[in-house]
Amino acid sequence: MIRTVQFSAAHRYYRPEWSPERNREVFGACANEHGHGHTYRCAVTLQGEIDDTTSMVMNLSDVDALLKDEVVDPLDHQHLNHVVRAFADGTAIPTAEALAVHVWDRLQARLPEGIDLVSVRIEEDDTLSAEYAGP
Amino acid sequence: MIRTVQFSAAHRYYRPEWSPERNREVFGACANEHGHGHTYRCAVTLQGEIDDTTSMVMNLSDVDALLKDEVVDPLDHQHLNHVVRAFADGTAIPTAEALAVHVWDRLQARLPEGIDLVSVRIEEDDTLSAEYAGP
Amino acid sequence: MIRTVQFSAAHRYYRPEWSPERNREVFGACANEHGHGHTYRCAVTLQGEIDDTTSMVMNLSDVDALLKDEVVDPLDHQHLNHVVRAFADGTAIPTAEALAVHVWDRLQARLPEGIDLVSVRIEEDDTLSAEYAGP
Amino acid sequence: MIRTVQFSAAHRYYRPEWSPERNREVFGACANEHGHGHTYRCAVTLQGEIDDTTSMVMNLSDVDALLKDEVVDPLDHQHLNHVVRAFADGTAIPTAEALAVHVWDRLQARLPEGIDLVSVRIEEDDTLSAEYAGP
Amino acid sequence: MIRTVQFSAAHRYYRPEWSPERNREVFGACANEHGHGHTYRCAVTLQGEIDDTTSMVMNLSDVDALLKDEVVDPLDHQHLNHVVRAFADGTAIPTAEALAVHVWDRLQARLPEGIDLVSVRIEEDDTLSAEYAGP
Amino acid sequence: MIRTVQFSAAHRYYRPEWSPERNREVFGACANEHGHGHTYRCAVTLQGEIDDTTSMVMNLSDVDALLKDEVVDPLDHQHLNHVVRAFADGTAIPTAEALAVHVWDRLQARLPEGIDLVSVRIEEDDTLSAEYAGP
Repeated sequence: MIRTVQFSAAHRYYRPEWSPERNREVFGACANEHGHGHTYRCAVTLQGEIDDTTSMVMNLSDVDALLKDEVVDPLDHQHLNHVVRAFADGTAIPTAEALAVHVWDRLQARLPEGIDLVSVRIEEDDTLSAEYAGP
Repeated sequence: MIRTVQFSAAHRYYRPEWSPERNREVFGACANEHGHGHTYRCAVTLQGEIDDTTSMVMNLSDVDALLKDEVVDPLDHQHLNHVVRAFADGTAIPTAEALAVHVWDRLQARLPEGIDLVSVRIEEDDTLSAEYAGP
Repeated sequence: MIRTVQFSAAHRYYRPEWSPERNREVFGACANEHGHGHTYRCAVTLQGEIDDTTSMVMNLSDVDALLKDEVVDPLDHQHLNHVVRAFADGTAIPTAEALAVHVWDRLQARLPEGIDLVSVRIEEDDTLSAEYAGP
Repeated sequence: MIRTVQFSAAHRYYRPEWSPERNREVFGACANEHGHGHTYRCAVTLQGEIDDTTSMVMNLSDVDALLKDEVVDPLDHQHLNHVVRAFADGTAIPTAEALAVHVWDRLQARLPEGIDLVSVRIEEDDTLSAEYAGP
Repeated sequence: MIRTVQFSAAHRYYRPEWSPERNREVFGACANEHGHGHTYRCAVTLQGEIDDTTSMVMNLSDVDALLKDEVVDPLDHQHLNHVVRAFADGTAIPTAEALAVHVWDRLQARLPEGIDLVSVRIEEDDTLSAEYAGP
Repeated sequence: MIRTVQFSAAHRYYRPEWSPERNREVFGACANEHGHGHTYRCAVTLQGEIDDTTSMVMNLSDVDALLKDEVVDPLDHQHLNHVVRAFADGTAIPTAEALAVHVWDRLQARLPEGIDLVSVRIEEDDTLSAEYAGP
């Protein structure tokens, strides 16, 4: 099953140890000082046996509670560079790729036995997305 | 090639052997008495050699005839709990997962040799879908 | 400002005083016995002065509370022929047109002074909608 | 003719003369400190006689140059609270309504004679937009 | 009520009495020799009293028959410069604006009494459309 | 990462060595003389290690330059039967399948080491697409 949630967030691509010129050269307008933003979509694919009584891979209300906890509540209406540790400390840049890995790690730690996380896809808009299928 | 068709249908999640309270607890508003509905989308992925004369995996008019027969005609403008045997007899609940399996089985039985059914994806709306890639 | 909410519902076009043949002739597959459904979208346009302190026509949280009360809570996951009086008693058929009038009447009665309801648009899917701009 | 352009931007709803509590009460999560963002769409409707030789209301390349100058270049990949004077000085909050007025004013000043600006619609996402049709 | 149909067509912007250079200057890549194409959408808005027995402005099957006759059958899978007289004889260029007028004229001649054609909107894609509301 | 670009193009399905009747029988309206067209979308999936300094699989500006060179510039506002050799000489028909192979071949030849081309998906519209994942 594939559940998609939406969240609005700001982000900025910037490496503090680089000069402004180098940041601009590598990241273009994404390096602009105050950041910009997107209405992100996050599609999570879960795999497992279809339950005999509910005909669901995982009960939808449980999936929604999980995604609310791990994706929407921590990221919606936030500036990603400030609320995700790896983006705040410069370990990573808040690209779609890095965000997919971040969401994967959060979800992977919380899934019940018998449910496999197949992939996390982060869509910045209709033209750019990243999909992570695990390490 | 991936062909997507659309159909409008009603469904209800409900197990007759359960109390109304238990149905509500497990299925939430999906257990409401008269059912609700969706404008479903069904995306079918077929794989095979690209034909030398038509440059198609399977002639589009044949694909469309097949999907009309096996998906649109039996499901469009119907209440799924009434027209699909597994949903009518309580063997399965008309979730996106179960519907994907149902459509897979119908299509699998009708595909010509040399064409593989890769997956059937059922989308209830932009936020929930299920994809079945076979047993 | 235009706020759009989504709800899933079933409906059936049927006049009890007509024969099944006449129902089928006028309403086609929409007359099928158990109904079918859609993932409806409802777009509400509100007009007014832009508030000096909030720069909004009407505070978004108030708009959302209103639409939850009058559109989503009463209609989502329901069979329209059963939950709307005019559809249950046969006064009206649950078409997009009739549903737009119904939602208009509910909202009109609740809007604060200074906010005009410009239109209610009900979309059954990407190909059919109705817009009502008042009597 | 209606031309739609897209831009990614961050924004924050906040009145500096209010307490954090009051900002949170009125603006909810939109008051979060570092802002959030959207992939905005801006639809501009222009009206006029259809030109006899081009069959266009206004040559599309001229429309695109205008929208690049007045919408995309100044707003894309920016934080709206920082790049639009009315939002920076607190005269207005960067809501969809206020942004529609802002874009209207910029475009109105640049349109050639014979072309009327009918409306500017700003869409934050699929569920919220504002349309301004002039003073 | 608003009904939207889709058709795929090719078109080319070109005035035979102009030099290739002037065509390129005015029409850009739209002047390319063999034309290009779009998956067009055509949204038709009809207004009238809601019928007491059907709750529709105009019976949907009649609307669909009309749009099949006047829009889909004549335009789908065609090259617009060849199948529409005004585009073939150079009286008009197949822009979205001119196409909206063309469809308006075809529909206006066929609507039953009591049904008003409010507008015809032609969308080339998500970023460009034209709407005609009559002479 | 998945980057999607859009281009507008015309195409025609036709085998010159076949009679018009046979072309019509096999290709239906796609065999119409002057061709028709679509607003195509092309989604390219690239896989690789996430770069430590940019958190991207491949710098987005490089991806965009590549797709401009190999997809948008050669195909946008063109008639595919005229600008792609395999379609012009009749070796292949410009179906979504054949176009996906064509774009794959162009991209594969240009990708830097360490970046794998996972798939090329060509979408004619919301209902038909083809995805090629290599020979």
